[in-house]
Amino acid sequence: MASHRFDPTFTDKVVSAMGDKTEPRFKQLMTSLIRHVHDFARENELTIDEWMAGVQLMNWAGQMSDAKRNEGQLVCDVIGLESLVDEITFKLAEEATDAPTATAILGPFFRADTPFRSNGETVVRTIPKDGRGEIAFMSGKVVNYVTKAPLVNASVEVWQASTNGLYEQQDPEQEEFNLRGKFRTDAEGKYSFYCLRPTPYPVPDDGPAGKLLKMMDRHPFRPAHIHIIATCDGYKPLTTQIFDRKDPYLTNDSVFAVKDSLIVDFVERKNDPQARIELTYDVRLVPDGAKTSGV
Amino acid sequence: MASHRFDPTFTDKVVSAMGDKTEPRFKQLMTSLIRHVHDFARENELTIDEWMAGVQLMNWAGQMSDAKRNEGQLVCDVIGLESLVDEITFKLAEEATDAPTATAILGPFFRADTPFRSNGETVVRTIPKDGRGEIAFMSGKVVNYVTKAPLVNASVEVWQASTNGLYEQQDPEQEEFNLRGKFRTDAEGKYSFYCLRPTPYPVPDDGPAGKLLKMMDRHPFRPAHIHIIATCDGYKPLTTQIFDRKDPYLTNDSVFAVKDSLIVDFVERKNDPQARIELTYDVRLVPDGAKTSGV
Repeated sequence: MASHRFDPTFTDKVVSAMGDKTEPRFKQLMTSLIRHVHDFARENELTIDEWMAGVQLMNWAGQMSDAKRNEGQLVCDVIGLESLVDEITFKLAEEATDAPTATAILGPFFRADTPFRSNGETVVRTIPKDGRGEIAFMSGKVVNYVTKAPLVNASVEVWQASTNGLYEQQDPEQEEFNLRGKFRTDAEGKYSFYCLRPTPYPVPDDGPAGKLLKMMDRHPFRPAHIHIIATCDGYKPLTTQIFDRKDPYLTNDSVFAVKDSLIVDFVERKNDPQARIELTYDVRLVPDGAKTSGV
Repeated sequence: MASHRFDPTFTDKVVSAMGDKTEPRFKQLMTSLIRHVHDFARENELTIDEWMAGVQLMNWAGQMSDAKRNEGQLVCDVIGLESLVDEITFKLAEEATDAPTATAILGPFFRADTPFRSNGETVVRTIPKDGRGEIAFMSGKVVNYVTKAPLVNASVEVWQASTNGLYEQQDPEQEEFNLRGKFRTDAEGKYSFYCLRPTPYPVPDDGPAGKLLKMMDRHPFRPAHIHIIATCDGYKPLTTQIFDRKDPYLTNDSVFAVKDSLIVDFVERKNDPQARIELTYDVRLVPDGAKTSGV
């Protein structure tokens, strides 16, 4: 690999500086990171000015981050890293026969204190003033992925942004817990509620992630989506997002989170004065201890 | 290279999202960075928790940085990146026939407003109270690298930390411009001054760089060194550091900046009541437009 004209011993010297007491997994990660970062610098003959521009951008991301905003995460998102780590985690969880919990991306707008609502209720507590709020009826079953049997008393939690691209905790105009709720499946495994047809929105582009997007000649938009967490005793929790097939940003999500299996179709709904469109979505949960080859 | 079991199209998708208006060099750097970062994640099957720990560490570095401290730079330093970029820059400058100015690392403690002093004067304006301050006489010539002719009226600027590891602007106990000065070479190309024999000191280890060092089971010390900038009309400026051969950290500098050619020997000095040791160091400057194969 030493097909460069720089000191061929340098990277080994940095790696071997690590002491015997380094935790093995951390040593593996730092060794790999140091090799990749050094290869990146050599392959591109990185200049001091370019390196320093990168340092200042990362410092800026940290300075912009606080309890409500994680700009370092967003910088990773726009280069696809969070979605890639999500894919890796998902694949490992799939392959494990006794994964304790499939960790997954919550995103920054999840709230642990979201209240339960009754099936058939609406999560739209504040009607968007821009007239772009289209009410949809969403319903489905939670089922055992292996046997297809309906799961009674499972929990389905959803949250979504309003038409202005803001989640309720970002927007003083929205009632608390607007566009979020938890639902329990009934005796037939069914859940149902009214929500908004989701709309695309830009990720915050006033910081380093936005600067990178502009410099890469890319737009900041995420395709319309609804966040879902489904849980049931005896089953692996599922955290996911579903995407509207008609969204113009479906093929060019600024954070690369769309998977084909997560694209859904809103269709016409008849004879319901509350909603003219509907979405049917069944959630399939994997029993604890089951090995699967695709969920 | 796709010897992994993850989506083989994902990285290409992220890279190809860059638009036509992306500046070509930036596109090259981002393409390479994205490929290396994704390979790093896949090769190590990076978990969400590990990725998020990295994000939080980088955010912390930014939050700790201000006008007086660049923690993002220090994180790069402890994994050897600044020294590697310095080597790359140095090699490119060597190879260029008409490099305008060899950019080089100044470090965070350079001051542009350092005053000129007379040859033979001392830069030690505040004597260290810990008794560890050993006065040294440093002298030499500035010469033309090609012809070896002495250069008259060249400038030699030096700065160094005190025995407590602090530069004067970090330490209210030190007089302003303590341990720094600029000197002009005389009619024979000579400069001279008194300074301290430099002492090793730790890089600041109360932040993410220090945390990484501890986790890598490494010490934070830099070997004793004196910073030098030499300039002369018609010659390429030289920015460098020289290191004391007797320093215990010479082979394990926490930021990997030592080069063999920069190691110097302090020797006994006789018949000088002001200093018992001395260092002779000639600075060789490359004429503008000259091509060299090693300076």
